[in-house]
Amino acid sequence: MIQHPAFTAEPWSVRETALHPDVLSQAESLFALANGHIGLRGNLDEGEPSGLPGTYLNGFHELRPLPYAEPRYGDPQSGQALVNVTNGKLIRLLVDDEPFDVRYGQLRAHERLLDLRAGVLRRRAEWVSPTGRPVRVRSARLVSFVQRAVAAICYEVEAVQGPTPVVVQSELVANESLPGIHGDPRAAAALSSPLRLVAAGAHGTRVVLVHATRVSGLQMSAGMDHVVDGPADTETGTEGAGDLGRVLITATLEPGQRLRLVKFLAYGWSSQRSAEALRDQVSAALAEARHAGWDGLLQAQREYLDDFWAHADVELDGDLELQQAVRFGMFHVLQSGARAEQRAVPAKGLTGTGYDGHTFWDTETFVLPVLTYTSPQAAGDALRWRHATLDLARERARQLGLAGAAFPWRTIGGQGSSAYWPAGTAAFHVNADIADAVLRYQAATGDEAFERGPGLELLIETARLWCSLGHHDSSGRFRIDGVTGPDEYSAIADNNVYTNLMAQRNLRAAADAVMRHPGHAAALGAGHEETARWRDAAEAMLIPYDERRGVHPQAERFTEHQVWDFTGTGADRYPLMLHFPYFQLYRKQVVKQADLVLAMHLRGDAFTCEQKARNFDYYERLTVRDSSLSACTQAVIAAEAGHLELAYAYFAEAALIDLEDRECNTRDGLHIASLAGTWIAAVAGFGGLRDHDGTLTFAPRLPERITSLTFRLTYRRRCIEVTIGHDRAAYRLLHGEPLATRHHGQPITVSREKPVECPIPPATAREPPAQPAGRAPARRKPPR
Amino acid sequence: MIQHPAFTAEPWSVRETALHPDVLSQAESLFALANGHIGLRGNLDEGEPSGLPGTYLNGFHELRPLPYAEPRYGDPQSGQALVNVTNGKLIRLLVDDEPFDVRYGQLRAHERLLDLRAGVLRRRAEWVSPTGRPVRVRSARLVSFVQRAVAAICYEVEAVQGPTPVVVQSELVANESLPGIHGDPRAAAALSSPLRLVAAGAHGTRVVLVHATRVSGLQMSAGMDHVVDGPADTETGTEGAGDLGRVLITATLEPGQRLRLVKFLAYGWSSQRSAEALRDQVSAALAEARHAGWDGLLQAQREYLDDFWAHADVELDGDLELQQAVRFGMFHVLQSGARAEQRAVPAKGLTGTGYDGHTFWDTETFVLPVLTYTSPQAAGDALRWRHATLDLARERARQLGLAGAAFPWRTIGGQGSSAYWPAGTAAFHVNADIADAVLRYQAATGDEAFERGPGLELLIETARLWCSLGHHDSSGRFRIDGVTGPDEYSAIADNNVYTNLMAQRNLRAAADAVMRHPGHAAALGAGHEETARWRDAAEAMLIPYDERRGVHPQAERFTEHQVWDFTGTGADRYPLMLHFPYFQLYRKQVVKQADLVLAMHLRGDAFTCEQKARNFDYYERLTVRDSSLSACTQAVIAAEAGHLELAYAYFAEAALIDLEDRECNTRDGLHIASLAGTWIAAVAGFGGLRDHDGTLTFAPRLPERITSLTFRLTYRRRCIEVTIGHDRAAYRLLHGEPLATRHHGQPITVSREKPVECPIPPATAREPPAQPAGRAPARRKPPR
Repeated sequence: MIQHPAFTAEPWSVRETALHPDVLSQAESLFALANGHIGLRGNLDEGEPSGLPGTYLNGFHELRPLPYAEPRYGDPQSGQALVNVTNGKLIRLLVDDEPFDVRYGQLRAHERLLDLRAGVLRRRAEWVSPTGRPVRVRSARLVSFVQRAVAAICYEVEAVQGPTPVVVQSELVANESLPGIHGDPRAAAALSSPLRLVAAGAHGTRVVLVHATRVSGLQMSAGMDHVVDGPADTETGTEGAGDLGRVLITATLEPGQRLRLVKFLAYGWSSQRSAEALRDQVSAALAEARHAGWDGLLQAQREYLDDFWAHADVELDGDLELQQAVRFGMFHVLQSGARAEQRAVPAKGLTGTGYDGHTFWDTETFVLPVLTYTSPQAAGDALRWRHATLDLARERARQLGLAGAAFPWRTIGGQGSSAYWPAGTAAFHVNADIADAVLRYQAATGDEAFERGPGLELLIETARLWCSLGHHDSSGRFRIDGVTGPDEYSAIADNNVYTNLMAQRNLRAAADAVMRHPGHAAALGAGHEETARWRDAAEAMLIPYDERRGVHPQAERFTEHQVWDFTGTGADRYPLMLHFPYFQLYRKQVVKQADLVLAMHLRGDAFTCEQKARNFDYYERLTVRDSSLSACTQAVIAAEAGHLELAYAYFAEAALIDLEDRECNTRDGLHIASLAGTWIAAVAGFGGLRDHDGTLTFAPRLPERITSLTFRLTYRRRCIEVTIGHDRAAYRLLHGEPLATRHHGQPITVSREKPVECPIPPATAREPPAQPAGRAPARRKPPR
Repeated sequence: MIQHPAFTAEPWSVRETALHPDVLSQAESLFALANGHIGLRGNLDEGEPSGLPGTYLNGFHELRPLPYAEPRYGDPQSGQALVNVTNGKLIRLLVDDEPFDVRYGQLRAHERLLDLRAGVLRRRAEWVSPTGRPVRVRSARLVSFVQRAVAAICYEVEAVQGPTPVVVQSELVANESLPGIHGDPRAAAALSSPLRLVAAGAHGTRVVLVHATRVSGLQMSAGMDHVVDGPADTETGTEGAGDLGRVLITATLEPGQRLRLVKFLAYGWSSQRSAEALRDQVSAALAEARHAGWDGLLQAQREYLDDFWAHADVELDGDLELQQAVRFGMFHVLQSGARAEQRAVPAKGLTGTGYDGHTFWDTETFVLPVLTYTSPQAAGDALRWRHATLDLARERARQLGLAGAAFPWRTIGGQGSSAYWPAGTAAFHVNADIADAVLRYQAATGDEAFERGPGLELLIETARLWCSLGHHDSSGRFRIDGVTGPDEYSAIADNNVYTNLMAQRNLRAAADAVMRHPGHAAALGAGHEETARWRDAAEAMLIPYDERRGVHPQAERFTEHQVWDFTGTGADRYPLMLHFPYFQLYRKQVVKQADLVLAMHLRGDAFTCEQKARNFDYYERLTVRDSSLSACTQAVIAAEAGHLELAYAYFAEAALIDLEDRECNTRDGLHIASLAGTWIAAVAGFGGLRDHDGTLTFAPRLPERITSLTFRLTYRRRCIEVTIGHDRAAYRLLHGEPLATRHHGQPITVSREKPVECPIPPATAREPPAQPAGRAPARRKPPR
């Protein structure tokens, strides 16, 4: 956990005021910049010291063999892994022949600041070389939201005392050495030296390198160009060989004099285009970036983000840390998806190689709801990416003996990469999660081209999957046996409530979509007979209920299982999966992450209020939150059940997961879904937003310390602002047509004329639920 | 499948009258010789051609890393694999400078004969060298049942025409090259060059080599000595270097003249003793063998087997092939266990490296019942081996968070080697199977020292395991959730009927044993409070029953699952596990091997006759027999339910599994449990032997073609002979005190005075059950 007084709480930035070597890796993740296409970890400009050097291109991966001691039919033989590509952020500095390295000499001042409105990482350092020569270094780095292929760095060195000879080496380096992997299976296997040189070229201060992966056969190009501004004696030279391109700048600075370097970077990759085409694409992007110039890029970045925040900001009074955290989370969610453009949104975004850079169901379930209401174009692109992998998903379904499409549990390019089928292949809910994201996106945008095209096909193929995966038993109930729900401490269970409810919605929505678009559906072979089967299956869907206990079992018979011995499980034995075998976890009542509780959020329409309260109480006692995909959902249902202080604690846990390195693996990259969950906890939790069947409703209610919460949403070409106090909420329409919605069940219509103000009814008083021993979320401390 | 007219049906031998290269590997397994300590595959004397060269020492293994693409807590990091040790059976012959190799020149005659009464493999060949020189070669090979460390070969070459120069090279070879492994995961990973030379010595025609494994740190010694008898000009020489020891014999033979060589072999291994001690042990064994001489070894072997067959023979009239097969099976079961002496009985015996040479639950469930009634000393030794591994099993239980002992699913030395936990760790029934074998052995032998010692401790520690593995639910029922029963097409299910019934017996028997031996039990910390808990758990044991269908589900909810699409599954898609993912197999009603049906055999006391008939009918429709551990059990219950012709077909399937290579993997070694199952099908099936709670009963009934069945059993120092015809059965006591038993439920007392003859009541007529499409067992052809 980061216990780091150097990080200050500020509403619009994350600031580090001292460099602590023990949280270097974590800071690299926090300060990562990305636009969904290019990702740069927050490594120091000079490269070292570093925790994990990282430069990523979304989707650019290598294959590695997946070993099995006892091979089984259907196991994937190779897995995809995100590759650390050519590093263009490297700017080495020599002062008086001494390399600028903060581990040597004296670091008199250090500050890094991630500016969430400017979209820039700024750095400031004052350093005295081992020979006693002081310099000031300033840098600013951005990955452009506007020019997708472009990043840029503005680097300045200033002499402080006496004439100071400086050398700046601005580099492009492929196959840089990476630290060995640690034992935690969640961390990615490092791929050493993954790139093979294909072509290299230099012209002036521009260098372009083209590399290819050895096995997956992908090609990438990285390029840099420079604008140098220094004293008259400044000289530049360019050299390059193999995996290294370098521009060398030498100057001697008088005190107060500066050498300023703007480094433009461009990246591109393709599985099909030639090395020459990639080289030229990168050169063109560099030319465009140079044309815009550093100030132009900065300004465009600011405008892009101003627009984003104007439509999406969440303002929260009473807890500055969480105000910071919620914006930090939204910024990183935006960075992960903004310009992905038919690539996936990985679990770690482009901030690290955790989980090998794979994308899971988290994208659809946690990230896309946020993007749908704040940056809908990005949500649509992510779903178009899923659609682009449909043929692979169809092939996988065939291999498994199923109809329709079976999307992979973890993947980069659409091929399944899961080597442990009980928690991979069997977790079919990912297909319903994709369908749910399709429905949400369509309802929120009215994107008809999408609905008739990718949306329809995704709904049809997932419905077909469910129809073939389940069967009617002798009582006529539709059963889905032997699958794994969201909770990874259970597996291969019958009739998981979450899965069955999500499949039910999937089947019904697919049938509706076919009816709305009969022509397009017919082209996909879907007609009345098939949709009738879908509706029948949905209607007959078995949703187990434990009458005796008055709760829903997570899956059939779950509540009959032995309850985990929580009191006998010390704090040092969490996360449980690193200290107990899955054999024991699967057979007992112990929940890693919200599963039935997530069903109560996403399929809240399928439960009564009383059921929700009872179920929540029951599962709170079993849920250990060894996953980052839990706290936000628990916040949402806690808030709905009236446990607002508990919801507040969960909200904080989701929000601070990376800023405080709560799971001790922020080094491997940020938890993008949990960061998205911060927004979900605020907006669906305290704002009470629900969107069942495409209808937007609200039921806001605040915990004590939050005095006011304001959020903005984009919904069908409208911008809606909701301001919540303790007693009343106000709904404003910033632009667009009037919207009919509900406030705590009461119909209201929000128009541009004036805000609608509504009183907030008091919550039903209920006994606060208990958590397993030692697993209650930390209550928020009083403000500092 | 071996379709080999060269194998003839004979009552007391297996004879091969021509050498077919395409079944060379299978023949090597069929002709393997072993005594439970040493195993020699039936490789040709001259080593080549060969399918799989094989010389094994029970328990002598190497470790190999077990790779995991996604590591999990509790997975074993290395697996044990049986090692091909120093080959001492090699005798190369040069005729006229041409190597004797049946692939070259002309093989005029070939015969191999495994003599089941003599315990010898004989070979006869007439060969003309490529240069046109004919010779006759005869050899005989034995692995001594009497001198555990000794094997011997008598090798003769005879000139046929003109003076014939011959050179015989008798060798000891370590690290001989092995063929690469094929894709089938069931085959062992070949370990190339596993041995490191520690010491070598030669004296006269005696050579001794000592080697060690590289990782597991075991040491072994192999030695050979020779008696040569040839014409006057015969010369011998000895050479040896590194992994090779060689005795060279040269002679020139006149027509009709013979060179005769007796080669004595001795083997020993240890994890503790020094190289010198092993060398001396082997030298001493060689001296003893030489002292006995070839004829002495032959005679002792014959006497050993005469005694065995006198107490154990199964005589069967009306089907010569099955008469041969049942004796073949018993011979190999004896070879696997006779002199194992506190080593395991592996699934393949010592006939090949299939399943890496591991021992599974098959030993206790299929092999030990046969040994218990035919060679009880060997059964006791095998159980003492399990007892010797108790500390490892306790440690594994601790690692899993359980009490008592958790025996490994697959092992050589007692350490778990299973890399796929749903079918390994979760298959806890192995513990009840061990307890069951303990109870059977104790009841059949009255071995009190065993009962007070290893037996008591095994029962107590397995009972403790069950008590910690299960729990009482809110209705007070004792549940065992999330385990895997015998059927490998199901896994991680709740309340598997087989497991729960076997655990119930285990718990009760342990409580009884503690009561009978309070002093010894107290020393193991077991007293009244603990046994009361065991009895409570046994009493409250949940045995699920499907009222609607009137059958027992294999595990809770099994009968609710979808029935496998058998009609849509072509013959080329079996075994299913090589063509479908486990995901699909586990969630559907499809049974690899008897599970509920096995419960009806071993816990027949827990079912009514009507339940057995209904259950059998139900599970016949689902059982595909992709395992060799099924046909014999189906034979037993088919016979009990009155389906005698079906029982006969299953009996034949079990009996011919290796003689006809029914599963196409006899090359990797014999299916010892299925061969033991041949005896079970005959004696428990057609003889109706049951031994619930230590009481021996019979209910004989024959299929039409078998006109008479006679078997002998050893039971508490008695020898009982049962002769069964179609109308009546006769019970004779060959020696020992009178025995009270039951014939079809009627009490009878068998004494030495005269046979008890009893009429056989007609079977209840029932509709014959159906099997899945294409999976009915082959009906026996009319006699040929």
